[in-house]
Amino acid sequence: MVHTGSCGDRLHNILVSYLPILTWMPKYKKSDLLYDAVSGITVALTLMPQSIAYASLAGLDPLFGLYAACFGSVMYIIFGSVRQITIGPASVVALLTFNYVNPALPTTAVILCFVSGIVELICGLLRLGFVVEFVSMPVTGGFTSAAAIIMASSQLKGLFGISFDAKNCMEMWIKFIENIEHFRVADTAMGLICIFVLIGLKSLKTIKVNAKGMKAKSYSVLLFLLTTGSNVLVVIVSSIIAYFSIRQGQSPLVLTGNIASGIPQFRFPFSDYEDEDEKFTFFEGLSRLWPGAIVVPLVSILSTVSVAKAFSGGKVVDASQEMIALGFCNIFSSFMGSMPVAGSMTRSALNHTTGVRTTFSSIFTTILGMLSLLFLTPLLYYIPKSSLSAVLICAVTSMFRYDMMISLWKTNRRDLIPFATAFVACLIFDVELGLLFGICVDLLCVLYRSARPSISIEKETNSGYVKWVVRPSSGLLFPAVDYMRQRVIAEMSSLECSNKPNLIVVDCVHFDKTDFTAAQGIKSLINELKSESCQLELMNAKECVAAILEATLNVKILSMVPLQDSVKKFNFIQPDLNGIESMTLHEMKMKNICERKT
Amino acid sequence: MVHTGSCGDRLHNILVSYLPILTWMPKYKKSDLLYDAVSGITVALTLMPQSIAYASLAGLDPLFGLYAACFGSVMYIIFGSVRQITIGPASVVALLTFNYVNPALPTTAVILCFVSGIVELICGLLRLGFVVEFVSMPVTGGFTSAAAIIMASSQLKGLFGISFDAKNCMEMWIKFIENIEHFRVADTAMGLICIFVLIGLKSLKTIKVNAKGMKAKSYSVLLFLLTTGSNVLVVIVSSIIAYFSIRQGQSPLVLTGNIASGIPQFRFPFSDYEDEDEKFTFFEGLSRLWPGAIVVPLVSILSTVSVAKAFSGGKVVDASQEMIALGFCNIFSSFMGSMPVAGSMTRSALNHTTGVRTTFSSIFTTILGMLSLLFLTPLLYYIPKSSLSAVLICAVTSMFRYDMMISLWKTNRRDLIPFATAFVACLIFDVELGLLFGICVDLLCVLYRSARPSISIEKETNSGYVKWVVRPSSGLLFPAVDYMRQRVIAEMSSLECSNKPNLIVVDCVHFDKTDFTAAQGIKSLINELKSESCQLELMNAKECVAAILEATLNVKILSMVPLQDSVKKFNFIQPDLNGIESMTLHEMKMKNICERKT
Repeated sequence: MVHTGSCGDRLHNILVSYLPILTWMPKYKKSDLLYDAVSGITVALTLMPQSIAYASLAGLDPLFGLYAACFGSVMYIIFGSVRQITIGPASVVALLTFNYVNPALPTTAVILCFVSGIVELICGLLRLGFVVEFVSMPVTGGFTSAAAIIMASSQLKGLFGISFDAKNCMEMWIKFIENIEHFRVADTAMGLICIFVLIGLKSLKTIKVNAKGMKAKSYSVLLFLLTTGSNVLVVIVSSIIAYFSIRQGQSPLVLTGNIASGIPQFRFPFSDYEDEDEKFTFFEGLSRLWPGAIVVPLVSILSTVSVAKAFSGGKVVDASQEMIALGFCNIFSSFMGSMPVAGSMTRSALNHTTGVRTTFSSIFTTILGMLSLLFLTPLLYYIPKSSLSAVLICAVTSMFRYDMMISLWKTNRRDLIPFATAFVACLIFDVELGLLFGICVDLLCVLYRSARPSISIEKETNSGYVKWVVRPSSGLLFPAVDYMRQRVIAEMSSLECSNKPNLIVVDCVHFDKTDFTAAQGIKSLINELKSESCQLELMNAKECVAAILEATLNVKILSMVPLQDSVKKFNFIQPDLNGIESMTLHEMKMKNICERKT
Repeated sequence: MVHTGSCGDRLHNILVSYLPILTWMPKYKKSDLLYDAVSGITVALTLMPQSIAYASLAGLDPLFGLYAACFGSVMYIIFGSVRQITIGPASVVALLTFNYVNPALPTTAVILCFVSGIVELICGLLRLGFVVEFVSMPVTGGFTSAAAIIMASSQLKGLFGISFDAKNCMEMWIKFIENIEHFRVADTAMGLICIFVLIGLKSLKTIKVNAKGMKAKSYSVLLFLLTTGSNVLVVIVSSIIAYFSIRQGQSPLVLTGNIASGIPQFRFPFSDYEDEDEKFTFFEGLSRLWPGAIVVPLVSILSTVSVAKAFSGGKVVDASQEMIALGFCNIFSSFMGSMPVAGSMTRSALNHTTGVRTTFSSIFTTILGMLSLLFLTPLLYYIPKSSLSAVLICAVTSMFRYDMMISLWKTNRRDLIPFATAFVACLIFDVELGLLFGICVDLLCVLYRSARPSISIEKETNSGYVKWVVRPSSGLLFPAVDYMRQRVIAEMSSLECSNKPNLIVVDCVHFDKTDFTAAQGIKSLINELKSESCQLELMNAKECVAAILEATLNVKILSMVPLQDSVKKFNFIQPDLNGIESMTLHEMKMKNICERKT
C-alpha cells in the first residue's frame, strides 16, 4: 500500500525517513517562523532555570546543564520527527547521571553523554524501537512517581539550606530529620515562598478571562507569560533579593556561586580529561561509569519515546528514528561539554501549547541560551540555591502519577501490580534496578496471563454420543497448552464413565500461532484421550497453525473431522470465511479441504 | 464438577492428593507385587553401575552414588504420583553437583542434597508447579543435548586412562588433545570394547523373534535381560578381567578402588562435618555451595516433572506434588549421606517397559542396593574406570536430541531459535547459565510473538462511505496495541484523502484480556483518527474486556456502534452467542445492551 515508485522515489523515501528535516524544510513559511520563534523563546525561559537545577541534581556544575540546554536539541532539528519535542537536560536522566558520575570527576558526565549518544544511535540503526513497546504505562508510571519522590527528597537539603551527603531516598530523609535543627531561616523562607509563588502562578492557568476584545487578549497573554515564565520570574526576583542583601553587607542565602561565562569550545570527547586533582583518558573515565552507559541511554530512550508518543497526534512514532535523533543530540552536545540529554515532557507540552510548527524552534532556544552564556552568567552567581530547589520540586511534582493510580484503581486493578512493583522497587533499590525489576514482573504477568486463556467447554449429548467442544480464548503458545490439557482431563476425571465424551473437538478459531511444545502437548492429549477411548479433533485451524500441527501430529488435521459425526446441524461459525453463517462440520471440512488444495 | 461431598470427603481428597500412596495401597494385589518386583530388580541392575558412574561424574566417591541409588526413591513410594518414575542419581544433576561441590570437601554434596530437598519441598507447598510450564521443550532439548556433550566429553579422560583437570567442555577437549599421547593402551581398549558391546546389546532390542511358542518366550526373555542388563554385564565382565589380570601380577587398568562397605548410618544433616583435612558446620558448608542450592533443585524439578509428564499416560501431572515428593526424597536420602537425586528418563522408561504397577517397586531397588552395599562392595574395587566411562557415555547419548532437531527443522523452524540458544549457551557458559539464558530468550520470543498478532483489515465501500473492519488475531495485551495502531495508521497514511475510511470498526472477537496500556493505546488511536475525521468503534467485546475499555475510554463501547451505520446486513458473527449466525450491527448492539443490563 505504501507509495512505491522508481528507484529514485524509494531512495527519497528512505532519505526522508532518516532526515525528517527534508519533509518540512522545503515547505517552510514566514508564518511558521513566527510560531517557532515564540515557542523556542518560551521554552528557553523554562529551560534555563531548570537546566541549572537539573545540573545541581546531577551533582554537577551549572554549566553542564546550561550547555545541555543550549546544544542538546540542535541535532533534533535535522533528525527529529515530532515537532513538539525539545531535547535538553531532563530530570530522570539527571538523577541517573548523579548515580554514575563521580562528583570529584565531573567531566565524566561528558563521556557519559557521548557514550549514551553512541548507544542510542546504534539501537536506532538496529531498529530496536519495538523494545519500547514492552514497557507498559503502569511500569513507567510507577517508575516516574518514585523518581519524583526521590528527586523532591534530594532537594530538601537545598530548600532548608542544610548540607549533608546521602545515597538513597531513605537515607536522605533520615539525615534530613537528623539535621533539621541546623536549618537556615533565610533559605527556608526563600524556598518555601518560591514554592508557594510557583504554585500560585501555575494555578493562574485555570483562570478564565471574562473581559472581551483587545483587553481579553492582553489579559490572556499576560496570564500565559506569568504561568510559562514562572520559573524565570521566581529565579530573577530571588536573585535580585540576594543581590541587594549582599550589597547591604548581608549574606543570609546560599548562592549558586561563580560560573565561567562564554560559549564552550568544541572538543572531541576522545581527548584527555583533567579534573581538579586528576588526569584521565576517555577510556579510564568510561571504565568508572560503564553501567551508566547502558542504563542512561535506555532510560533516555524510554522517556523520549513516551513523550514523542504523547505528542505525535495521529502520526506513527518511529521509535527507532527517535533513538537515532536522540543519539545525534547526545553526541553533538557532548562535543560542547554537556551532561546527557533527553526529551522532557513539561517543555514539550509547553511547545505544544505555544503552537510550535517545526523542530526548527529549537534554534531560538539555542540562540537565547548562547546569549545568556555570553552575557548573563555573572548574574547567575546570585541565584539562591533554595529557589532552584523550589523550581525543581515544582517541576517534578507533575511526575508523581497519582492520577494514574486513581484510574488504575477505577479501571483495571490488576495493573496496579506492575505500578506498585516498579514504584516500591525504585524507592527501595536504585531507580534503574527498580525499573528493570518492574519491567520483568510486568512481562511475567503478561506471560502468565497469556498462559491462562479462558477455556469454554460446551457439552452436547445426542442419543448417548457425548461430544465436547473445547474452545480456548486465545492462541496456544506453549505455556497455555498444558493448562488446556489439565482443564480437559480434570473435567473428564470427575465424571462417571457413561458421561465421558466420545469425541472432543478443539476449536482453533482463536489460535493465531502455535509452536512445537504446544503441538507436542496436543499430541499427548490425543494419546491420553485414546486410553479413555475418546477421539480428539481439531477444527477451524488457520493455515499456519494447521501446518505446524499436521507436521507434528503426523496426521491431516482436517481429515480428523469425522464423517461419521452424527450431529446434523452444528452451529459453528468460521469468522474468517465471509458469508458463511452456519454449516455442518462435514460441509466445513469439505470447504476447507478444497480451499487448502487450491 | 469435582466430586465434593461432606467435610470428611473433602479432607480425604486433600489427603489423597498429598499422599498418593493412599490411592493404590488399599487396592494392592499379589499380582501387582510380582510386576513391581520384576521392575524394581531390573531398574536396580541398570542403576547400580550408573550410580557409581554418576558419582564419579560429580567428582565424588562411588558411595555417594550408591547411597543415592538405594535411598533416593524410598519417599517417592509415599509421595510420588507417577508409578513409572524412579528417583536416584541423575546425569544432569550429577554434572551440576560437580560444579558446586568442592572435591576436597565431598560431604558438602550431602548438604546440597538436603538443601535441594528443602527448596523443592517449599516450592511444592507454595504450588509453584506451574512455573515448569514456562520451560518449553526446545529449550529443554537444547539444554540436555549440550549436557550430553559435556558429560560425554568429561568421560574421555576416563575412557583413555588419561588424567587432567578441566573446568569446561572446551578446556576438556583442549587438554584431552594435548594429553592424548599419554593414553593407556589397556584402558582405551577396554573402554572402546565396552562401548561397542553396549551399543551391540542395546541394538538387540530391535531384533524380532521368529520362533514360536515357549522357545519364542524364552528367547524374548533372554533378549530383554541382555538389553536391560547390558550395563551390569559389561561392568561385571570387565571387573572379572581386571581381577584376573591383577591375580596374574599385572595391573594395566585404572580401577575404582576401595569402597567402604555396609549400610550408612542415619545422620542428621545439621551436624558437624569432617572431610580429609577440614572440619566444618552445616552452614559453613552451605555457604561454599549456595548458588547450587537454587540451581540444583530447579534443574531437578525440571527434569523430574518432564519425566513425569512423559509417563503420566492420561492423568494430569500435579507438578507441585512431584516437587513435594522430590523434596522428601532428597531430604530422606541426605540423612543417609547421598548426593542429590532426581527422576531419570532412562530408568523410568525401563520401569514402563517392565510393566510397573505402583511406586512400591522402588522398595526392591532399595533392598537390592542394600544387599550390594553389604556384600558386594569389595567386588566394586575391581571395576575398571574406563568401563564406567563407557557406561556413562552410552547412557547420555540418548540425551542428545538430534531427533528433536530434525523434527523442529521439519515442523517449526522458528522453534530452532530457543533450541540453538540453549544449546550454544550451555556449551559456552555453564549449563545452568545456559539454561537460564535459553529460557529467557524463549520467553522473549513468546512475548514478541504475542505482541505481533496478525491483523486483517477488511475494506468496504458503500456509496462513498468507507468502512474498515480491523481484526487482530489475538488479545491485545499492551505490547500488541501499538502494533495495531501503527498498522492502521500506516495503512491510512498511504491513501488518498477520498479513499480514507470514515469508520473503523475494531473487532474484538479474538480478545481475551486487555489492560490499561492497551486501553490507553486505543484511546490515542481514537484521538488520532478524530483528526482525520474518522470514527473508531469496537464490536464483539467480551464482558471483561468491555468493562476495562469502557472505564478507560470513559464511553459506552456498545453505544459506539452507530445507528446511522448504513450497511444493512453485516455478516459478523459472535461465536460466543449460540444460535446467532448473522445479525446487523444494530441488532447486535441492541442484544448486547439488553444482555448487559440484565
